[in-house]
Amino acid sequence: MKISVQTSEKTYEVMIRSGLINQAGHYIEKMIPASSYLVIVDQHVASYYLEAFLQTFHTANIHVSVVPSGEQSKSFQQYEQLLNDCYAFGLDRSSVIIAFGGGVTGDLAGFVAGTYMRGIRFVQVPTTLLAHDSSVGGKVAINLAKGKNIVGLFHQPELVLYDPDLLRTLPNQEWRSGFAEIVKMGFIADKDFLLWLKAEVAQLPIQDEKKLEYMIGKAVALKADIVQQDEKEMGIRGILNFGHTLGHAIEGEMGYGALTHGEAVAIGMAFALKVSEQKKGRDFSSSVYLEWLASLGYRLTVPQVLKSENLLAQMMKDKKARHGTLNYVLLEAVGDASIEAIDATELKTFFD
Amino acid sequence: MKISVQTSEKTYEVMIRSGLINQAGHYIEKMIPASSYLVIVDQHVASYYLEAFLQTFHTANIHVSVVPSGEQSKSFQQYEQLLNDCYAFGLDRSSVIIAFGGGVTGDLAGFVAGTYMRGIRFVQVPTTLLAHDSSVGGKVAINLAKGKNIVGLFHQPELVLYDPDLLRTLPNQEWRSGFAEIVKMGFIADKDFLLWLKAEVAQLPIQDEKKLEYMIGKAVALKADIVQQDEKEMGIRGILNFGHTLGHAIEGEMGYGALTHGEAVAIGMAFALKVSEQKKGRDFSSSVYLEWLASLGYRLTVPQVLKSENLLAQMMKDKKARHGTLNYVLLEAVGDASIEAIDATELKTFFD
Repeated sequence: MKISVQTSEKTYEVMIRSGLINQAGHYIEKMIPASSYLVIVDQHVASYYLEAFLQTFHTANIHVSVVPSGEQSKSFQQYEQLLNDCYAFGLDRSSVIIAFGGGVTGDLAGFVAGTYMRGIRFVQVPTTLLAHDSSVGGKVAINLAKGKNIVGLFHQPELVLYDPDLLRTLPNQEWRSGFAEIVKMGFIADKDFLLWLKAEVAQLPIQDEKKLEYMIGKAVALKADIVQQDEKEMGIRGILNFGHTLGHAIEGEMGYGALTHGEAVAIGMAFALKVSEQKKGRDFSSSVYLEWLASLGYRLTVPQVLKSENLLAQMMKDKKARHGTLNYVLLEAVGDASIEAIDATELKTFFD
Repeated sequence: MKISVQTSEKTYEVMIRSGLINQAGHYIEKMIPASSYLVIVDQHVASYYLEAFLQTFHTANIHVSVVPSGEQSKSFQQYEQLLNDCYAFGLDRSSVIIAFGGGVTGDLAGFVAGTYMRGIRFVQVPTTLLAHDSSVGGKVAINLAKGKNIVGLFHQPELVLYDPDLLRTLPNQEWRSGFAEIVKMGFIADKDFLLWLKAEVAQLPIQDEKKLEYMIGKAVALKADIVQQDEKEMGIRGILNFGHTLGHAIEGEMGYGALTHGEAVAIGMAFALKVSEQKKGRDFSSSVYLEWLASLGYRLTVPQVLKSENLLAQMMKDKKARHGTLNYVLLEAVGDASIEAIDATELKTFFD
């Protein structure tokens, strides 16, 4: 399956196909010729797939930097190290960086590409279910010690190669992490897709190859449609943050890694559903969706160890916050999201 | 004097006027309203001007981060510190960063602004003659340990306020640094301007206020004209690097700070003039210009302590290098520059 994503500067393709990884080098060299390549690869992914991956390339001008797995790689130290690597390997303005790994690798490698020599091209080869989401849309970032994704850019990839076969080695927690973002697309933009997911996905991981390809392709296409309307997140793109304001706060308070991103977002979505229903005075039959998500292994309430004051303080530090007011993503109906200003005082009432 | 610079996304103004600093806050608050401001200021500048500068603002939502003077501030450590400051001060997406200092401060603060929350707005208040150049055109950057300006972005300011009165406290070396970039604009784009400079400027510093304003305004206008044609340096903008390929290599080999940027560029310009004359087989009457520059205190030959092999190796690492060939800025005639590919072997012959 191929999806074209249009940006202000170019159009790039997202290719989704089982077995694609065995031709990765072929496609990259053909579609994105470069003076040299640097593969930035997650340590864990490298141990499984790197050797085979490199063998799909013909060029000898290919370098590798391995980064430790996990969110802590999105640090200034790792960022500086990779830029020093780029320079030591002699990468120039016609070089291309290949991000081979999950969302962390994509965010980090993309930020390196976006700032090395004021920006060189990069290709995403995502290896997790979650990374289907982060690899499209051009958001790249690293973390401050106290704030996730606070430092970054919009830097669009040249190509995204997504091979669902790579998901076979993922732990269940990672499946839940990625699947939450797919469910999110249904909630904010496509009720029929959400109902299809609910009918077809009774457990994770998903074994059926066709179902998996369709589901990822659909989520990418829905996201691409939103990103194309608002590349720099001045408006509509903000709805992609459904469940994320609380989700990020939970991740921050728990320490990154205690819950996966998508697991935290799932709690955030359950919370946002409640806020939406109460503020709008409507019934979305949320319980039907929440029970299904619970049956897939998601927890949907805020962990008791977390204090609501601390979560609120974190939420008010969100990038989307302005003048002490949060732009919160709510639902008008299932499949139809909108952004509304909520202040801290009101938000607090929903925690009680 | 006001010069408008048009970019793909917006038009911004460069205001040049003696005494402007006493109304800086007034203009910034009126023209670039913000939820809060962060002034990133050079330590040396702060000791002279910060208190008075802050008093020109009405808002209480203004924060200050002082950075040490000198090129070593363009480090990853300082960059991370400033981003932590932004976050601690609660800067949001409608906040504005004000770069108050020389080129180093502008490059660093601009890179912070360009990457904090994926980019917030910034204003340049340059305090050196050299910074007339770096404050226009949107190039912002920090340094790798081994490579200057290797990490950066194009991030255009919202406004540039330039007060030539601030130059009164600059040492002569800094005057030479900035004046070299002004002379460069004559060499690459406007012979009449170069002749005017040669006729009117017999010594540095320049005392005459009107002459100074005119000269800076003219250099900014010439640069703006080039930048507007090629914002991201895909072609013509490259001519602004006249004298810079060797200049950067000299700076790198001497250690930043031993010679000022413009002093190193002056040596690079003298070298590029020689290369141009030899390659084109033309006579530009270079000696007339070189004698004038020497009389202003510039050295125009490569310091003997530097080895040409090392300089060549540095030059081949230039951001403008591709596939082992350098894009070198040469003159077709005085006032008319072009970019030509030169390989290392040929370049070496000009050092002999």
